Amino acid sequence: MPSPVDPVALTAALVRCPSVTPEEGGALVLLEGLLSGAGFDCTRVDRNGVPNLFARWGRRGANRSFGFNGHTDVVPVGDAAAWTHDPFGAEIEGGYLWGRGATDMKSGVAAFAAAAVDFVRETPPDGAVILTITGDEEGASVDGTQAILDWMAAEGEAMAVCLVGEPTSPERLGEMMKIGRRGSLTAHVTARGVQGHSAYPHRAKNPVAALCRLMDRLDTHVLDEGSEHFDASTLAITTVDTGNPATNVIPALCRGTVNIRFNDLHSGQSLSDWLAAEAAKVQAETGVEITLKVVVSGDSFLTPPGSFSDLIADAVEAETGIRPVPSTSGGTSDARFVKNHCPVVEFGLVGKTMHAVDERVEVAQIVALKAIYGRVLRDYFA
Amino acid sequence: MPSPVDPVALTAALVRCPSVTPEEGGALVLLEGLLSGAGFDCTRVDRNGVPNLFARWGRRGANRSFGFNGHTDVVPVGDAAAWTHDPFGAEIEGGYLWGRGATDMKSGVAAFAAAAVDFVRETPPDGAVILTITGDEEGASVDGTQAILDWMAAEGEAMAVCLVGEPTSPERLGEMMKIGRRGSLTAHVTARGVQGHSAYPHRAKNPVAALCRLMDRLDTHVLDEGSEHFDASTLAITTVDTGNPATNVIPALCRGTVNIRFNDLHSGQSLSDWLAAEAAKVQAETGVEITLKVVVSGDSFLTPPGSFSDLIADAVEAETGIRPVPSTSGGTSDARFVKNHCPVVEFGLVGKTMHAVDERVEVAQIVALKAIYGRVLRDYFA
Repeated sequence: MPSPVDPVALTAALVRCPSVTPEEGGALVLLEGLLSGAGFDCTRVDRNGVPNLFARWGRRGANRSFGFNGHTDVVPVGDAAAWTHDPFGAEIEGGYLWGRGATDMKSGVAAFAAAAVDFVRETPPDGAVILTITGDEEGASVDGTQAILDWMAAEGEAMAVCLVGEPTSPERLGEMMKIGRRGSLTAHVTARGVQGHSAYPHRAKNPVAALCRLMDRLDTHVLDEGSEHFDASTLAITTVDTGNPATNVIPALCRGTVNIRFNDLHSGQSLSDWLAAEAAKVQAETGVEITLKVVVSGDSFLTPPGSFSDLIADAVEAETGIRPVPSTSGGTSDARFVKNHCPVVEFGLVGKTMHAVDERVEVAQIVALKAIYGRVLRDYFA
Repeated sequence: MPSPVDPVALTAALVRCPSVTPEEGGALVLLEGLLSGAGFDCTRVDRNGVPNLFARWGRRGANRSFGFNGHTDVVPVGDAAAWTHDPFGAEIEGGYLWGRGATDMKSGVAAFAAAAVDFVRETPPDGAVILTITGDEEGASVDGTQAILDWMAAEGEAMAVCLVGEPTSPERLGEMMKIGRRGSLTAHVTARGVQGHSAYPHRAKNPVAALCRLMDRLDTHVLDEGSEHFDASTLAITTVDTGNPATNVIPALCRGTVNIRFNDLHSGQSLSDWLAAEAAKVQAETGVEITLKVVVSGDSFLTPPGSFSDLIADAVEAETGIRPVPSTSGGTSDARFVKNHCPVVEFGLVGKTMHAVDERVEVAQIVALKAIYGRVLRDYFA
């Protein structure tokens, strides 16, 4: 039997691939070689130039099928001169492996790929292990994980559950897993009144006053106090603009924008309806015409805590001594696509240096993450 | 005895003087010649290049002294091609005298100068008749009527009462006189918060939300319901500006402006204090630092209705059959300077075409206005 896959060496090899979105950079080719050699059935599922890799060990349509999802693309280096180590050098110094993607998330991909290869070699399961790895998570994400999932649906491929290997812990490895995310929408508000002289406001209809009133009502409204698995929804006014330099003139037009991050007590539609109702009230009170353009970036989603999240939490606790909090905080990830396919949970490294200069990962944590993923696989198929 | 002064011919002669602010244009020279010839003691009280004329009939320091105030400067012609008559031609057609300043206010100056000359010739009073005429009321007004009043104070010259000959009637000659004006102030508000991510508003301090809250409170506050002689005070938000294009960012800075027109229930100081108190409340509630820069253009003033305003109203009613309403509406005039010297009332022509293309005055109304002013003088010294 071959020796176990070294997840640190694999991370280093991946970091040396300059796979800044949308460049493949050799990363998926490298992984395909490793996985094919271990008996995985690999298919490149590129779409519109975006490189994607699907890899399955075991038979298609197996009853028990465990999926991992991740990405090999990375954000740009930024100010290269500010780095203390070559961003694509994967140097190991002071207990850290340094480089772009070290945390987000080549180490995560290396850890699950290494764990999966070792697992199928050591204890071939009665089922399938599936890896979906995209080259576009940091970009538009239109032809990335979604393209793999579309192809899988067409081919009759399926994961019963999926673990996304993104960084999830704020400070200490093991403290947090993600079981969902809040939704997000942006509303662009336009108030159209009637211009007039500042000395005679009753002859004008002031769009600035109307918009301030609406904005204050939206801002002071408590959307909710949070739900069982979500923080409270939040609303932020991001801008109000008029551009009227004349202090003796009431202008005709004023514009503003609000951004809402919402939990499972709301939907993009319910919030759009609420915004429209509040705008209508202010319009009725002031005579100022208020129109809304609402853009829903995504609804909230949740994999309710249960056997799958317990499986992950148990493995994390067994390896780290810390039981991860199931959280729905934070920004977006490809879990928003996977959740339409199967139950999805995210667990990975500490994300502190993501996207930053001198991105780095503690070498010991890569090893620990591989151990966690390996235990997850053994427990799932036990 | 010389024949009475023709106020229409005098208006026409003044209109032919191209006295666009700050040009004297021959207007004050013309008036000085007329008044000197009638026994007025004339002094040019120019300051910083602004032409001003002081003229007194009778002795300095007389117990009874009636003043008129007016201006000979005019606003620019604007689109000269749009005029149907030469703006400095003073043509008479269709019962109107056409030209820049025909209404505002060469006809007013001509009417009171003609009335004053006739009066002192026909019934020399026991007292003084004083005319203060400036060449800068339409401009900065810094070295105009104020310069004459400063010179008078230094010289021991005084008016017991003063009638300003500005147009005061919206539609029909005689319907309105002005006994005061509202004050005006502008407050520039700056809100400084802490920038942050839209998804985590609790980690930021949102200056847009704070400013909207403050603006809505100011806008919905009822300053007053009006006072005995004044309309209600008004407040208008004229602009709110942020300039933040990023919907996922809460910005650090937001600015806004409000303009307040206020009656005698307030002062620039009392309103500045109120604005500061409201800003402090929102600052305490939100943690957003709110600073104010308040510019008081002028406090309100009032010549309370009484013997002087009755004198004017009686004369107007006797000549026109209409008793003028004592009003405090409208914009600014040099009465704001005169009110610090003596009781002041404004009465003049219909102001409809002021500052407009094809400014014109009904010839019959110039004659009527002279008659009113003459009656005022006779009644005052009776």
